[in-house]
Amino acid sequence: MDSDFGVPRELSDLQKLRANYQPELPPCLQGTTVRVELGDGTAAADPLGAHTISRSFPHTYGQPLAHFLRATARVADAQIITEHPVIRVGVVFCGRQSPGGHNVIWGLYNALKIHNPDNVLLGFLGGTDGLFAQKTLEITDDILSTYKNQGGYDLLGRTKDQIRSTEQVNAALNTCKALKLDGLVIIGGVTSNTDAAQLAETFAEAKCQTKVVGVPVTLNGDLKNQFVETNVGFDTICKVNSQLISNVCTDALSAEKYYYFIRLMGRKASHVALECTLQSHPNMVILGEEVAASKLTLFDITKQICDAVQARAEQDKYHGVVLLPEGLIESIPEVYALLQEIHGLYREGVSGDNISSQLSPWASALFEFLPPFIKTQLLLRPESDNSAQLSQIETEKLLAHLVEAEMNKRLKAGTYKGKKFNAICHFFGYQARGSLPSKFDCDYAYVLGHICYHILAAGLNGYMATVTNLKNPVNKWRCGAAPITAMMTVKRFSHGPGASSIGKPAIHPATIDLKGKAYELLNKNASKFLMDDIYRNPGPLQFDGPGADTKAVTLSVEDQDYMGRIKKLQEYLEKVRSIVKPGCSQDVLKAALSSMASVTDVLTLMTSPSGSTPM
Amino acid sequence: MDSDFGVPRELSDLQKLRANYQPELPPCLQGTTVRVELGDGTAAADPLGAHTISRSFPHTYGQPLAHFLRATARVADAQIITEHPVIRVGVVFCGRQSPGGHNVIWGLYNALKIHNPDNVLLGFLGGTDGLFAQKTLEITDDILSTYKNQGGYDLLGRTKDQIRSTEQVNAALNTCKALKLDGLVIIGGVTSNTDAAQLAETFAEAKCQTKVVGVPVTLNGDLKNQFVETNVGFDTICKVNSQLISNVCTDALSAEKYYYFIRLMGRKASHVALECTLQSHPNMVILGEEVAASKLTLFDITKQICDAVQARAEQDKYHGVVLLPEGLIESIPEVYALLQEIHGLYREGVSGDNISSQLSPWASALFEFLPPFIKTQLLLRPESDNSAQLSQIETEKLLAHLVEAEMNKRLKAGTYKGKKFNAICHFFGYQARGSLPSKFDCDYAYVLGHICYHILAAGLNGYMATVTNLKNPVNKWRCGAAPITAMMTVKRFSHGPGASSIGKPAIHPATIDLKGKAYELLNKNASKFLMDDIYRNPGPLQFDGPGADTKAVTLSVEDQDYMGRIKKLQEYLEKVRSIVKPGCSQDVLKAALSSMASVTDVLTLMTSPSGSTPM
Repeated sequence: MDSDFGVPRELSDLQKLRANYQPELPPCLQGTTVRVELGDGTAAADPLGAHTISRSFPHTYGQPLAHFLRATARVADAQIITEHPVIRVGVVFCGRQSPGGHNVIWGLYNALKIHNPDNVLLGFLGGTDGLFAQKTLEITDDILSTYKNQGGYDLLGRTKDQIRSTEQVNAALNTCKALKLDGLVIIGGVTSNTDAAQLAETFAEAKCQTKVVGVPVTLNGDLKNQFVETNVGFDTICKVNSQLISNVCTDALSAEKYYYFIRLMGRKASHVALECTLQSHPNMVILGEEVAASKLTLFDITKQICDAVQARAEQDKYHGVVLLPEGLIESIPEVYALLQEIHGLYREGVSGDNISSQLSPWASALFEFLPPFIKTQLLLRPESDNSAQLSQIETEKLLAHLVEAEMNKRLKAGTYKGKKFNAICHFFGYQARGSLPSKFDCDYAYVLGHICYHILAAGLNGYMATVTNLKNPVNKWRCGAAPITAMMTVKRFSHGPGASSIGKPAIHPATIDLKGKAYELLNKNASKFLMDDIYRNPGPLQFDGPGADTKAVTLSVEDQDYMGRIKKLQEYLEKVRSIVKPGCSQDVLKAALSSMASVTDVLTLMTSPSGSTPM
Repeated sequence: MDSDFGVPRELSDLQKLRANYQPELPPCLQGTTVRVELGDGTAAADPLGAHTISRSFPHTYGQPLAHFLRATARVADAQIITEHPVIRVGVVFCGRQSPGGHNVIWGLYNALKIHNPDNVLLGFLGGTDGLFAQKTLEITDDILSTYKNQGGYDLLGRTKDQIRSTEQVNAALNTCKALKLDGLVIIGGVTSNTDAAQLAETFAEAKCQTKVVGVPVTLNGDLKNQFVETNVGFDTICKVNSQLISNVCTDALSAEKYYYFIRLMGRKASHVALECTLQSHPNMVILGEEVAASKLTLFDITKQICDAVQARAEQDKYHGVVLLPEGLIESIPEVYALLQEIHGLYREGVSGDNISSQLSPWASALFEFLPPFIKTQLLLRPESDNSAQLSQIETEKLLAHLVEAEMNKRLKAGTYKGKKFNAICHFFGYQARGSLPSKFDCDYAYVLGHICYHILAAGLNGYMATVTNLKNPVNKWRCGAAPITAMMTVKRFSHGPGASSIGKPAIHPATIDLKGKAYELLNKNASKFLMDDIYRNPGPLQFDGPGADTKAVTLSVEDQDYMGRIKKLQEYLEKVRSIVKPGCSQDVLKAALSSMASVTDVLTLMTSPSGSTPM
């Protein structure tokens, strides 16, 4: 297997052009000096969870934020690192491939070699399996040459997604010791970065010299929090899918006789569906978060689509495009309950053939109501994390089927007088994951790779590389690192699958913020999208000219500069301190005292456990 | 419905850039003079069918080829048309939308306005329905502005695909008379161009002044013959699909645990599958033509794939990508026979529920063997042309299912010792049809639109616009027109569905030439594709830079310059005539006589009905 990885390969003309593209670095990463400013110690966003997290991560909880500064920045207490002893770093792909992943490795490699040509970068072959089995490939210029700015994870490959069991963690520890690694960089999403934090804690406890760094790379775009604005791969995935969705919209408008139901990737969060909707303007999107928040049943959703179909028919429109995320099926309360029963019976050792006869009367009634193909799919064994095999469950076909049945019923009853409803279903699953990465993802990943080196040079452990201010041009990007533990929360209630994670600190997938600006933008336009067919076609992914530098709508509308605000707050505090120096007037001092007392009162109230909203 | 068509719309940045792209014209179409050279009268390629065709098309069979010449060309008997009285032309989209269709209308519009600003172009709204009902939209600069170089057929829309019944033909005739049309341009594929020829004949018989012109626009790429090298839309469709296939290949190579089965469009011919294979180098492709020629059964195909899976497993490879055209299912002899029985029972009025019990024992045995989802799909009512609802039959899932079953059997029997076989299925159906057209399709369609005007200016009826030498740059393209009847054949045997067409002259879909150069290229590389994973990623469709001007591999490797060779032959004949003038030596005359006698003998033999291979 190993011999396949990292082999040079024939590139197409376009791939060659892309292989020659050199991403820009923001000013703070240029040069050969690392200048790091450590801010205040971090806390978890969820005060109730903080104690649990600090107990689980005694060595790595509460560490400060790190900001990497440009060479000319005048910051008094910045640490300036000009000595760069030789280091050895390992890097591993974890979880589903996401466009841009290769550039993290390239950026890390370049940063290593710029700072000391004797530095060594080892890639683990075949993902975590390679990490456990010490299978490595030393990264070189030659090896990288045909993988720069290219899609997929085929430079190193990936297999299993977890570093969790004691056995796995020990295997990783042994590997890092045996290979004398100074750093281990884990490229992945929510799960892999949680594992990275655990590994960092274990290594610190075991006094292992290897520092662990995480990189937010997941096409789902659900590793979002105060420190992380978006993930490598999300931009590309949304652009490739939006192109296809737009093509289908054009098709619908040309033939004027079909409703297209398109299922997109997105398990616990519907970020891809939301972004694609804002790029392509299809008629409808059904977000899992909306369904969960409004507790919509299968019948509610069906009715909602049927009413839309009927309203459009009254305007003589018999075509349309409806998007849904693959995770939708688990957001529908009664289907979720059914799935939980099925998975519970599997855990009890009941065989697939006997499950339907052992369902509770209520679940059985729903199950029997569903068309046969969905029954078969719902009966698939759950995945290792107890979630359903979502890529195999054709929710788009189920909805199309239910809508068709309901429209036929209305037609018979005479409440609908239009033409027959016709649906065509599509699943846009795996055809975007291997795409050439967009310029944004190439740049973002490359910069993150560089930051990984800076984190290791600063001797930090259990951090994630971060870039903020991403909606602005690269020379405005702010580079830093945040302790992964500061991104964790502790689930106290069971929402959705993965009930086994209750009580354990983890990074959880961020769902769409139904009070956020992106969702507001969708809401404001939803009725126009539905009725007016203002389809928008961003076209195929371009690397030059109009559209090449377009950023995700959700990234652009959100006002996300958390790290910038943290810095701004520090500036205010400094300012108050410098105004209210000993010697200032009594009046100034009184005013400052009274204002600050009220500020601290408000903040104390807001952050006390009883004042926070439970998650 | 009408109010939707031709409305100006918001374009994305990339769409705007494309809307500003101005396709080039070959030298022969530049200027305001039409210079046409009429060649020898045409015959049908199939000598046996010629009589039938000439009888069915007394007015339009045997017309000469037309070549459009550059202004400076010195051709003695070229007709030079400098007078351009006002003409009124109608244009209609027929059949499935194909990227580039809008540019035919734009090219035609520009040619009309250049030659006489008072010329009128009417677009029929909603396809042939609009033609029958006289629903038109006058094409203007304003209307065209947001549709230039854009995908879809949404400028005018399309609905039904046929102009065939007496009622339909009469409705078209009435419309053309009522609107006083001098020309009717039909944009479509094999079926629509056959209909165009029929309409031309009927109009000539009825002494209607409207001349009918066909344009070869179909994403299937199956309107291919001596005169037509490729079709508008095929280039784009293959590029968009190749991008996605390549992405899946990269995905397969990254995860190394799945076999992807991808079904592509392509009913009676597998051109899209072949072209995509040559662009993306997946591990396998199963062409309908190969299966039909070798009479492979479902079991043969399954075994072939299983053997490939096993050979790859021996090299520790557990991933792969397999392509198949949607028409494959009808190429498998026993499945075809089963489908024929099912469709026959439907024609006899048997209801869907009762069909399975009335099948012959042999068909019934096969039917019962198949998995339930395929049974349901095979039982779908046939389409209006008696073919199966191919887009609804998930052949990729059937094959994946059969291969999995067989691999499990081999695993149990111990003849296969590798890991468990895992398949993921995709149907790349409707997501490419609405794409922005490639540069090639923009240019080709625009030039064909211009040619339509030249055909009408030359007073020709029942012709198809043609461009040859397409693999060379636009300034080398040769423009002409060929009588549609010269592209017809008469089927005498029933191969595949559409048995009702036996005996009637028609353009038939060209299948892949298993002796052709494109197929030879595939064959030469097939084992490397299968075993070596030399996946190639042409990347997303680009409009500038590397890859933007790439042409289809099948177009580039075929040596197709039929029209060029016809001209070359005429030059040889002229040369002989000029050498052997009265006054030449006896020896020269004798040599010429003897050589020409043998040439004519050979050709007579080759073209006599008994010497031809039956179709």
